[in-house]
Amino acid sequence: MSKPRLNLGIIGYGFMGRTHSNAYRKVANFFDVPYEPVLKAVCARTRARAEAFQQTWGYESVETDWRRLLERKDIDVIDIASPNDTHAEIAIAAAQAGKAILCEKPLGRNAAESKTIVAAAEKAGVPNMVWYNYRRVPAVTLAKELIAEGRLGRIFHYRAKFLQDWTISKDLPQGGEALWRLDVNVAGSGVTGDLLAHCIDTAQWLNGSIDSVSATTETFIKERQHNLTGKVEKVGIDDASAFLARFANGSLGTFEATRYARGHKALYTLEINGEKASIIWELPDLHRLQYFDHRDEGKLRGWRSIHITDADHPYMKHWWVPGLQIGYEHTFVHQAADFLTGLASGNVPPPSFRDALATDFVTDAVLASARNLAWEKVPGA
Amino acid sequence: MSKPRLNLGIIGYGFMGRTHSNAYRKVANFFDVPYEPVLKAVCARTRARAEAFQQTWGYESVETDWRRLLERKDIDVIDIASPNDTHAEIAIAAAQAGKAILCEKPLGRNAAESKTIVAAAEKAGVPNMVWYNYRRVPAVTLAKELIAEGRLGRIFHYRAKFLQDWTISKDLPQGGEALWRLDVNVAGSGVTGDLLAHCIDTAQWLNGSIDSVSATTETFIKERQHNLTGKVEKVGIDDASAFLARFANGSLGTFEATRYARGHKALYTLEINGEKASIIWELPDLHRLQYFDHRDEGKLRGWRSIHITDADHPYMKHWWVPGLQIGYEHTFVHQAADFLTGLASGNVPPPSFRDALATDFVTDAVLASARNLAWEKVPGA
Amino acid sequence: MSKPRLNLGIIGYGFMGRTHSNAYRKVANFFDVPYEPVLKAVCARTRARAEAFQQTWGYESVETDWRRLLERKDIDVIDIASPNDTHAEIAIAAAQAGKAILCEKPLGRNAAESKTIVAAAEKAGVPNMVWYNYRRVPAVTLAKELIAEGRLGRIFHYRAKFLQDWTISKDLPQGGEALWRLDVNVAGSGVTGDLLAHCIDTAQWLNGSIDSVSATTETFIKERQHNLTGKVEKVGIDDASAFLARFANGSLGTFEATRYARGHKALYTLEINGEKASIIWELPDLHRLQYFDHRDEGKLRGWRSIHITDADHPYMKHWWVPGLQIGYEHTFVHQAADFLTGLASGNVPPPSFRDALATDFVTDAVLASARNLAWEKVPGA
Amino acid sequence: MSKPRLNLGIIGYGFMGRTHSNAYRKVANFFDVPYEPVLKAVCARTRARAEAFQQTWGYESVETDWRRLLERKDIDVIDIASPNDTHAEIAIAAAQAGKAILCEKPLGRNAAESKTIVAAAEKAGVPNMVWYNYRRVPAVTLAKELIAEGRLGRIFHYRAKFLQDWTISKDLPQGGEALWRLDVNVAGSGVTGDLLAHCIDTAQWLNGSIDSVSATTETFIKERQHNLTGKVEKVGIDDASAFLARFANGSLGTFEATRYARGHKALYTLEINGEKASIIWELPDLHRLQYFDHRDEGKLRGWRSIHITDADHPYMKHWWVPGLQIGYEHTFVHQAADFLTGLASGNVPPPSFRDALATDFVTDAVLASARNLAWEKVPGA
Repeated sequence: MSKPRLNLGIIGYGFMGRTHSNAYRKVANFFDVPYEPVLKAVCARTRARAEAFQQTWGYESVETDWRRLLERKDIDVIDIASPNDTHAEIAIAAAQAGKAILCEKPLGRNAAESKTIVAAAEKAGVPNMVWYNYRRVPAVTLAKELIAEGRLGRIFHYRAKFLQDWTISKDLPQGGEALWRLDVNVAGSGVTGDLLAHCIDTAQWLNGSIDSVSATTETFIKERQHNLTGKVEKVGIDDASAFLARFANGSLGTFEATRYARGHKALYTLEINGEKASIIWELPDLHRLQYFDHRDEGKLRGWRSIHITDADHPYMKHWWVPGLQIGYEHTFVHQAADFLTGLASGNVPPPSFRDALATDFVTDAVLASARNLAWEKVPGA
Repeated sequence: MSKPRLNLGIIGYGFMGRTHSNAYRKVANFFDVPYEPVLKAVCARTRARAEAFQQTWGYESVETDWRRLLERKDIDVIDIASPNDTHAEIAIAAAQAGKAILCEKPLGRNAAESKTIVAAAEKAGVPNMVWYNYRRVPAVTLAKELIAEGRLGRIFHYRAKFLQDWTISKDLPQGGEALWRLDVNVAGSGVTGDLLAHCIDTAQWLNGSIDSVSATTETFIKERQHNLTGKVEKVGIDDASAFLARFANGSLGTFEATRYARGHKALYTLEINGEKASIIWELPDLHRLQYFDHRDEGKLRGWRSIHITDADHPYMKHWWVPGLQIGYEHTFVHQAADFLTGLASGNVPPPSFRDALATDFVTDAVLASARNLAWEKVPGA
Repeated sequence: MSKPRLNLGIIGYGFMGRTHSNAYRKVANFFDVPYEPVLKAVCARTRARAEAFQQTWGYESVETDWRRLLERKDIDVIDIASPNDTHAEIAIAAAQAGKAILCEKPLGRNAAESKTIVAAAEKAGVPNMVWYNYRRVPAVTLAKELIAEGRLGRIFHYRAKFLQDWTISKDLPQGGEALWRLDVNVAGSGVTGDLLAHCIDTAQWLNGSIDSVSATTETFIKERQHNLTGKVEKVGIDDASAFLARFANGSLGTFEATRYARGHKALYTLEINGEKASIIWELPDLHRLQYFDHRDEGKLRGWRSIHITDADHPYMKHWWVPGLQIGYEHTFVHQAADFLTGLASGNVPPPSFRDALATDFVTDAVLASARNLAWEKVPGA
Repeated sequence: MSKPRLNLGIIGYGFMGRTHSNAYRKVANFFDVPYEPVLKAVCARTRARAEAFQQTWGYESVETDWRRLLERKDIDVIDIASPNDTHAEIAIAAAQAGKAILCEKPLGRNAAESKTIVAAAEKAGVPNMVWYNYRRVPAVTLAKELIAEGRLGRIFHYRAKFLQDWTISKDLPQGGEALWRLDVNVAGSGVTGDLLAHCIDTAQWLNGSIDSVSATTETFIKERQHNLTGKVEKVGIDDASAFLARFANGSLGTFEATRYARGHKALYTLEINGEKASIIWELPDLHRLQYFDHRDEGKLRGWRSIHITDADHPYMKHWWVPGLQIGYEHTFVHQAADFLTGLASGNVPPPSFRDALATDFVTDAVLASARNLAWEKVPGA
């Protein structure tokens, strides 16, 4: 008895194109998903690149114009893995074409753009989801369960940071294919939309909405050569961004992201302090959760380093045996599994486009606060 | 321009059947291998199980008799992922059938069995390799590079252990499909052939041959119900095994494996102390290498915790971006990539069957030493 | 050849009275100081307590009125280890009496109070020092050296937090002898003056002055029974305090302190990210410094965990042998050693009263910013 | 009401002379001991050294002949902190003189010597104790409590090692004052009596007696210049020593000590695996205990990192406040406190001379096993 086929068309062939493609190719080997995902088409402006990607990942066909891809009747799902400045136009057209849509984060370059995407998707009633993949790190999912079970009690503090160091050199240019994240026109913002967006998505998922923020940003290297023009141009993105937050539940938040933290390649870390228990998680060892429970016997209280590889840990019964860790790419497989299951049941799980918009409201407020040197209320929150 | 196809037939559908199948399915997405690996056939005694595995992993066909599989002309490579007691018979027949062979470790249940396998494979001249996968953890491969470059200087100490805790309960039965590792007739030995074999393979690869050993073993739970007979029977395997070693290079070794180390699911850890530098690696965080270099400036000397995720780390340029870890399963992908590349060039890389026999000489000596309460010389070493 | 005696009079017998007394008693056993410190007198309002303290620590005499202590000709140095609300009056009188003065931190309850103390001390020209003891953790002192040597290069980020969890219970009263830190009238503020003050002192010492701040504070438990009145009263202190900072050198700072971080007894941690190198230090393992140097060979770059116990580490040649750690109390011994040496040479080392005032300017700005929901410029900075 | 004075005479002024003197000077500041310890006399062959030590530590007098010290009526306790080859003669004479005796470890250079000491002390009926200080690391004492409470259940494994790296250089001479530990005539053995003795003392205290051992030792640098003769001489000590052990309780032990483990200054670490729980402790962070309890809820099981600084941890209520660590020297203060308390009650706590002899039986067996390449039964065990 074979499963129904679900035809996927992906736009983009970069880092995220790879993580998504890998997820589609692996998911059915490990999860009993209701569809057989079919890598139907990859779309990229340059045919040669599209074909190279096709060959590596086994896509059945290539397109060089995303409008053509949307017109195809044999495509069920559109996966947008192209740079941020393309999200809105493609997503709105895909919604109008009645496709289910998966979109890389951030949804739009700012909340205004994201609003138009949400409106189009909700008007069309198409299933939609955003690749905030860190929700599906098993340790983070377990954190969500522990909070939902009330184990932490009243929350006092939420702390997150995402530290990198890859743009410190003055000689690094901006823009173009490999470095569009440094081009404000393409990316929308710097670390705020790139790294902080992850922190905010997880934070609001785990700890509820952020009410207001006070932020500061900095661009340490003010000018860089632009790959598209060849000229030295002003850098428009934020290299670093930090903010204080007040959550609706009364807890305090501190957030920081930077690409200037020497020694950290990708240190996304979060900590939650509750009345009864606390949690720490860090991306560089994503298969561990640290947990402190005040209810433990006094003299034996300590932070527990939990190796999240057991069958009773989220998602883990699908992988290997206790003690054997998974890695970064698995978070995308988990999301693909949840998406396929949700699609079949008519109930695609979060984060939806609307959830991603809630993150954009915060990133917008962060940038506004940094500009205005003032606390900003998060709209809609 | 498509690649030549390489047809794989796998025997076994358990834990190792999965790790190998995953490797074949992923390898060409990440490595530019000279063949397209084709999942041609899976073989298992029970048709239903074979078919379930076929469906999950996309094998083209099933067999229920491995002799039939060996007869097929459309099979290039035989992968033996079945329990230890089947390795010799299958491997010898596969060699005689002229197939390239990949075999799970340990090669045979003891050196005598392994010798017959080596003889058959070498007589037939078929490419052969054993799945001692930990050599291809990038951090371990890097350790090998550092030693080869002479960075550690003269080696004084080698230290390895592999600690688990999954068989502590008296109520756990032995034998049968899921628990054949506890049945001495099937497994050959307990932790010595299962866990210590990994430690020994890595040790002799990194530090040269072991000359002599003094060992002790223990079976903590003396009797367990047997799944095949339903009766309480004597346990024939070793639950724990530890030995002192003298290496040919003059260094001292300490080795230990157990399934009775509460709190450790799979703590394989190794440490090498050289005159100039030292190395530590641990499986539960396999993407890290600890390195101490005495040549560092005095007041700033310390163990470096190296996050092995950069493009200049072994195998890592094929995966994601710096800071994003891989996991256990990737070691098999690396071995599959190296196997395919070696096969095309006529030079399959180690560990060969003969390399695996060298490990069996040591495990045999360990078991003999424990029986005889005496130091044992490792034959051939 | 005996050393000149230096007669010390201490006011206060609590936690800090103990750390200081221990420092005076040990310093000459480990450091070749130019004076023999003599525990001449301890002063406390309650004679019984003063006498108990005298007996434990071997003070020669007791006083119950600090004015009497100041009048004594046989006292060279006054050490103020009493609650914050007593610092100003005593310190000013001690200055007028021509005594050298050591004062617990914070200097005053706010900058206004501290200014009067600084003015009096500088007018009198008496040697003065404040017990910001964390400067003399050897790992922190080493961090200072590394920065001074230019090893970190341009600084981008400074990050500090001081997390505790001891006041979470609603049933904890405020005020009185043991809990004066919860009484705003005595303490001046909550965690801002208590914990953040340490972070700020170290930060400005290592990274230069803080220009402006944006802060938020919270009092999670709004009312507590007061030990002095027996009534439930409003809590006036801040339970948590966090701020963003801009340093004069262009780097960004994030600071946080709280007594509501379940699982942390005293987690003071600081991190500095420079263009070339970064540093992390954490109080719960104060004998370690983490150091990352980008100039290390690429594939072997990692955070070094430096065990600060070698003779070429600051202060450490005076203690034991490499590998054997010291603890919290030793920071006070180091300060006592430096004070005695400086006193003899006429050049008492920092932190002076004026240095401590610089911290108070920041804590005042933090509290003002939290009240006003606005960025505050740090006066004088 | 002053306490009775207890007059101490110490022999030796080296590293251990300092740790003991510090303990005597501090103990009454932190513990309510029944005696006031008086530093009555220090004895050393060279008057200048004795006087320097006297001045630093405040001893009332000096002696240059230990026989004179023993004759003094004003000395209650003799503390032997001189090199190993002096222990027997002094201890026996001190016993005959009716003094209470504290002796550095190891008791004698071998069990034969130690037997004569034990016999003399027991015949004289004098209080006696050996400075196996690691028993009184609070984390280790807590481990003892947990085992005594049955929390670990049946013990399967005991694992200890003590790794150093300070003698790797070929240019290091042997013998003389600073390097007597490398002179076999003075020290008795190398790392076996120096480092392994600590491991064995703790092991037999925590896990009962060792029945038999199989060992190997190595001297990596065969010849070194001798400081006393100026000539290059054969090195008689063991540089490294490792052994397998069978405990009387049926558990397996692995032990190792070396001075050739690059990167480790003093890595004494022990691990105990029980049916229900496990424990790890490491000297470089001696204020932490790692504890794993299988009875914890499955998905939240993990190694707890317990910061041993709370009032309900052994000895810790006497020191500072939770979160503030103590260091190496405090273990001696704890032993001094226990000794003084035990002396007053007529019941000096372990480890006695006889307990230390039990360690020497094991170290002798280790050295014999290494010589004979055979398992050795531990006499008396």
